[in-house]
Amino acid sequence: MSSAMEMEYPHPYVPTDLRLPGYVPNFLTQTEILVPYIASSFVVASLVWFFSVSSSPPEITIIGPRRPILLGRISKISKTDRILMCWWVFTGLTHIILEGYFVFSPEFYKKKVPCYLAEVWKEYSKGDSRYAGRDTAIVTVEGVTSVLEGPASLVAMYAIAAGKPYSHTLQLTICIGQLYGCIIYFVASFLDGDNFAKNPFYYWVYYVFANSIWVVIPTMIVIRSWRKISKAFLGENTKRKAH
Amino acid sequence: MSSAMEMEYPHPYVPTDLRLPGYVPNFLTQTEILVPYIASSFVVASLVWFFSVSSSPPEITIIGPRRPILLGRISKISKTDRILMCWWVFTGLTHIILEGYFVFSPEFYKKKVPCYLAEVWKEYSKGDSRYAGRDTAIVTVEGVTSVLEGPASLVAMYAIAAGKPYSHTLQLTICIGQLYGCIIYFVASFLDGDNFAKNPFYYWVYYVFANSIWVVIPTMIVIRSWRKISKAFLGENTKRKAH
Repeated sequence: MSSAMEMEYPHPYVPTDLRLPGYVPNFLTQTEILVPYIASSFVVASLVWFFSVSSSPPEITIIGPRRPILLGRISKISKTDRILMCWWVFTGLTHIILEGYFVFSPEFYKKKVPCYLAEVWKEYSKGDSRYAGRDTAIVTVEGVTSVLEGPASLVAMYAIAAGKPYSHTLQLTICIGQLYGCIIYFVASFLDGDNFAKNPFYYWVYYVFANSIWVVIPTMIVIRSWRKISKAFLGENTKRKAH
Repeated sequence: MSSAMEMEYPHPYVPTDLRLPGYVPNFLTQTEILVPYIASSFVVASLVWFFSVSSSPPEITIIGPRRPILLGRISKISKTDRILMCWWVFTGLTHIILEGYFVFSPEFYKKKVPCYLAEVWKEYSKGDSRYAGRDTAIVTVEGVTSVLEGPASLVAMYAIAAGKPYSHTLQLTICIGQLYGCIIYFVASFLDGDNFAKNPFYYWVYYVFANSIWVVIPTMIVIRSWRKISKAFLGENTKRKAH
């Protein structure tokens, strides 16, 4: 007995027997959801790229009583490090805003007025209905990702810019967390039957491709930071031997 | 209609409506399960402690044509590193043998003949029935722990003994994995109602205390290795400035 006011919409997700009382269909199209995300990510990353530039290391001087005193040089940030800063701000904000919204909004699929973040997850659930279905493993992994790895990613961006000695340790730590999260994400789905996508398009584009970004890039950063740390220890060891 | 041959035993786990057809009660008592685990762990750790000793760095020499030629010194392993080697062999073998058995034995609770490893998990399930119930999050986390972190722990022990430059990186990486696993373990239980222990004794001793070891020790190792890596970079940076 559903009146016009309490109309029940069938959800588009798989498995079809998933119970989602109060589900309201997407207000926005796939393009209207994807374009703002990609565009705003591009703008933010571009800003970081632009402001991290320092083509020649500038000198910091103060006016001394007789002549300017050189305090030091701002060390130049390498191109790779600048690319990594763009990545860290992108992944950090994605974790905090997008995934943070999911973690703390269990009823996102019931939103009766258009809400961009709810639209994102209603759309993404077509590739992985465990999001709408609030699967425990998903909520837990997303919780760790948004609450711990999100803010840590922004600190990693700062650590690179400031040339902190913990920069590689922090990057490695976050990447191990991201990779662990991805393993849980894919293995838990496999163990539960791997049948959460509406059709092969959503399976391959949302579930496989979108997530593989967080497998490939963290793996590359782990390899790079791992090597840099080993090099630092070898440098230290060499120095010790010289004494 | 259960005959004597196909007798169904009620399981001792909580929640009581957990379905475990074919469950066979423990053959061994709690003491008979715990003592061999603690004793064999103690023996293995003692062996590592004993064989890692080198109170004064021995010299390696070869007999030259006129006089012995000093090839080098085996660097002394610090007491902390020796303790860590004991920890890594203990945690590595626990991951590989105990947790590895669980991951690849979904029907451990049906074992009709005494099997020590099955007994361990039948007993532990009194503190966390998600093991007997084969909860997806548990199986996934235990899979990562046994297949990746277990062997990596043994490599960490070797890396410390051999003074490898990646020793701290590897230790940090495994510990971040262990801590991530513990977060998933506890948060997933909380989200699913935190009602998987037979009574408060099993809750506090098996679920809380036993697991807290893998929170406290990895946290300490993360802090130590983090500091050592930062120090290595500061050493490198100082050296660079000197040029």
